Amino acid sequence: MRRLLVLLALLAFMVFLISYGHGGADHSEGAAEGGHTSVYGFLFQVVVILLAAKIGGELFETMKQPAVLGELVLGMMLGNLQLAGITALESFKTDPALVLFGEIGVILLLFEVGLESNLKSLLAVGASATIVAALGVIAPIGLGYGVSAWFLPDAAWYVHLFAGATLAATSVGITARVLKDLRKMHTKEARIILGAAVVDDVLGLIILAVVSGLISSINAGSSGEISLGPVMLIIGKSVVFLVVAVLAGGYVGRLVLDAGAKSKVGGMAVVLTICHCFSLAGLAELLGLAPIVGAFAAGLVLTERDYEGYTHMSHEKFQEIVAPISSVLVPVFFVLMGLRVDLHSFADIHVLELAAALSVAAIIGKQVCALGVLEKGLNRIAIGVGMIPRGEVGLIFAKYGASLMVAGIPVFSPDVFSAMVVMVMITTLATPPLLKLLFSKEPAEA
Amino acid sequence: MRRLLVLLALLAFMVFLISYGHGGADHSEGAAEGGHTSVYGFLFQVVVILLAAKIGGELFETMKQPAVLGELVLGMMLGNLQLAGITALESFKTDPALVLFGEIGVILLLFEVGLESNLKSLLAVGASATIVAALGVIAPIGLGYGVSAWFLPDAAWYVHLFAGATLAATSVGITARVLKDLRKMHTKEARIILGAAVVDDVLGLIILAVVSGLISSINAGSSGEISLGPVMLIIGKSVVFLVVAVLAGGYVGRLVLDAGAKSKVGGMAVVLTICHCFSLAGLAELLGLAPIVGAFAAGLVLTERDYEGYTHMSHEKFQEIVAPISSVLVPVFFVLMGLRVDLHSFADIHVLELAAALSVAAIIGKQVCALGVLEKGLNRIAIGVGMIPRGEVGLIFAKYGASLMVAGIPVFSPDVFSAMVVMVMITTLATPPLLKLLFSKEPAEA
Repeated sequence: MRRLLVLLALLAFMVFLISYGHGGADHSEGAAEGGHTSVYGFLFQVVVILLAAKIGGELFETMKQPAVLGELVLGMMLGNLQLAGITALESFKTDPALVLFGEIGVILLLFEVGLESNLKSLLAVGASATIVAALGVIAPIGLGYGVSAWFLPDAAWYVHLFAGATLAATSVGITARVLKDLRKMHTKEARIILGAAVVDDVLGLIILAVVSGLISSINAGSSGEISLGPVMLIIGKSVVFLVVAVLAGGYVGRLVLDAGAKSKVGGMAVVLTICHCFSLAGLAELLGLAPIVGAFAAGLVLTERDYEGYTHMSHEKFQEIVAPISSVLVPVFFVLMGLRVDLHSFADIHVLELAAALSVAAIIGKQVCALGVLEKGLNRIAIGVGMIPRGEVGLIFAKYGASLMVAGIPVFSPDVFSAMVVMVMITTLATPPLLKLLFSKEPAEA
Repeated sequence: MRRLLVLLALLAFMVFLISYGHGGADHSEGAAEGGHTSVYGFLFQVVVILLAAKIGGELFETMKQPAVLGELVLGMMLGNLQLAGITALESFKTDPALVLFGEIGVILLLFEVGLESNLKSLLAVGASATIVAALGVIAPIGLGYGVSAWFLPDAAWYVHLFAGATLAATSVGITARVLKDLRKMHTKEARIILGAAVVDDVLGLIILAVVSGLISSINAGSSGEISLGPVMLIIGKSVVFLVVAVLAGGYVGRLVLDAGAKSKVGGMAVVLTICHCFSLAGLAELLGLAPIVGAFAAGLVLTERDYEGYTHMSHEKFQEIVAPISSVLVPVFFVLMGLRVDLHSFADIHVLELAAALSVAAIIGKQVCALGVLEKGLNRIAIGVGMIPRGEVGLIFAKYGASLMVAGIPVFSPDVFSAMVVMVMITTLATPPLLKLLFSKEPAEA
């Protein structure tokens, strides 16, 4: 605790410096006159965000909760400092460089999720996992659509659809982390949950591509009706992109990594890995899909074996190449997410009601997963509970919803966005204790 | 060679994609209408820069030349593709996000230089190293001032002073790398060269702070005369900052690192190290110094021992924490540097003459260093030659000169900037073969 106070003191000092920097406008103007780009403002912003992320992460880890929630909560606190009269951090929310840093962070996060999921084990995932995943996507979309239509009767159909899609997400990271902490990683239940979570990722990304594409086509054609043509086009595009990215992207990626093997130039492995990831992420966006779809595919096709030529790093896991970069950029995404949550909207009982209804729909929606388990004698309820946390994937959906525009109006209003963040927090917070309870009857693995 | 062709083909494909992206303006406008920030343009830019950096680095390493020169040359080629009718890369030169990436890259580079130089050995550096360094700074400043005044009679005194300051820089990195390759790292000559290079770094940063500060004060007061007051103020500020940064910054940095030790939250070591570096770099700039001064100080105060609490990384050198990040960001700085060199200016005989004169002044200026060696029986000429390469430090000075403005006019015109880059390339290219020749008489170390 005393250790955290050191970080907290430094954080407070940095916030003070930023306030001072904004007050003393002479400085920045002087720098502007001098003609040299001033970077200290950005550097301090990054320091504030990183310190907040680590303080939040440490606090929540101590409470046996996922670190990502801590990043979110600290971000929410920083983002609402104006309630305490400190307005210096308001610029964080729209600073283009910070937003870009966060975007790259989430690209690297999905790349790492892809690296962790192995293509072979993904293809070998049993029928159960696939059925569990499909049920766990269909049910929450339906329930989410219903809740949204009930609470927001004046909103367009695509708002309800996006709300449903946000409820469909499952966070592999949080589920895996909890099962690992419980030493239940190798139970059949765990394997089904994790397999389903991976299938879920792919389904979720396709849904995101479809919904975003639909909204783009509304913007282009300005017709508010659902037509099957564009939906099929986007599903087709996503599937074709994923298949091509996995086949051609994997081939080119291995060629590129091979070209750098045995090189004496420093940082070759990192740089070529980043090039591989950024190329596929950029290509996905160029084709009208989300860049994270490409990043996930980029991670999926690489295996440890592709780094065999880089002899000096044979002893460490290849994931660690990107880890130092992502551990700086990923927290920027989540803290910024928290920063954008407006605590004012919680004073609105309507927002709290929506958040509660969405959370109930999110939890019930995933319990349908238990019906998809084909094997007998398994703890079906545990599987349904294991699929509950929305975590970072839900947040990514919520953020897309808040930034996608139809006729100049965001799909998710600030109120809906806040309610979605609360739903993500409730589902993510509820899972670890529930899982612990459900698995506590059985003996732990060696 | 065939391996490099793979990277070259991917580079060409990316340049094509960027050209296509610019041509097909529908895409970016569509994305803008959709309201979502489009990142693929930036991702592709980064991929192009990183591939160019690694191709250049690999080519030059194969020719036993420093990789940084390759990054520069490939950058020059990319930056002048409009001569071949390809204009898509022109936007690279002024893209604010890329410029920011490069700025952070150079901050991390100086942080790493600081990490490599140990404060103790810096203080313990013999009298010889200090005298060698001082002579190696004074002589090039005088010669550089003279050459600049001769070739640019109409320019103001601060142009000449900045030209002299640029000639004073020594690149620790390149010198150390060549001596290491020659297995001469532990000779007395090598130790004096490296010690002097470290002192040189500190002197160079103080000179940069002084010259930049003078130019700022000219902008503020608009008097073109030299007055001793501001000069002394800036020297005082720099020295006080360095001392305070080393004492207080070191203390706070260790406190912060200690606060994160034993944490289970991932990426704690990287994130806190970055916070330490960015804080001091930002503070330096807030006080009117260059951010790299703060970054260097931040690196100087950290030692391997400060990471003892991070048990899971005890087996690797702590420098490697930042290496993956810097190996992505540092090349951005050097490739952008090359991009800004206008090959048109080489058609101007005046630029080539200036470049030749500056190179001669740069080489002769460092030979004065030999006079500062107190010990007898040493290869004095080798020490003078070892100080010749300007490398990345000279480039940093040249870039500051090109971006600092007095009354809306840059201190270094594009012509002078190009001449400076040529000078850096000549001095850096000349050193490895000369050193090899001078040391070849003696037997190599075991």
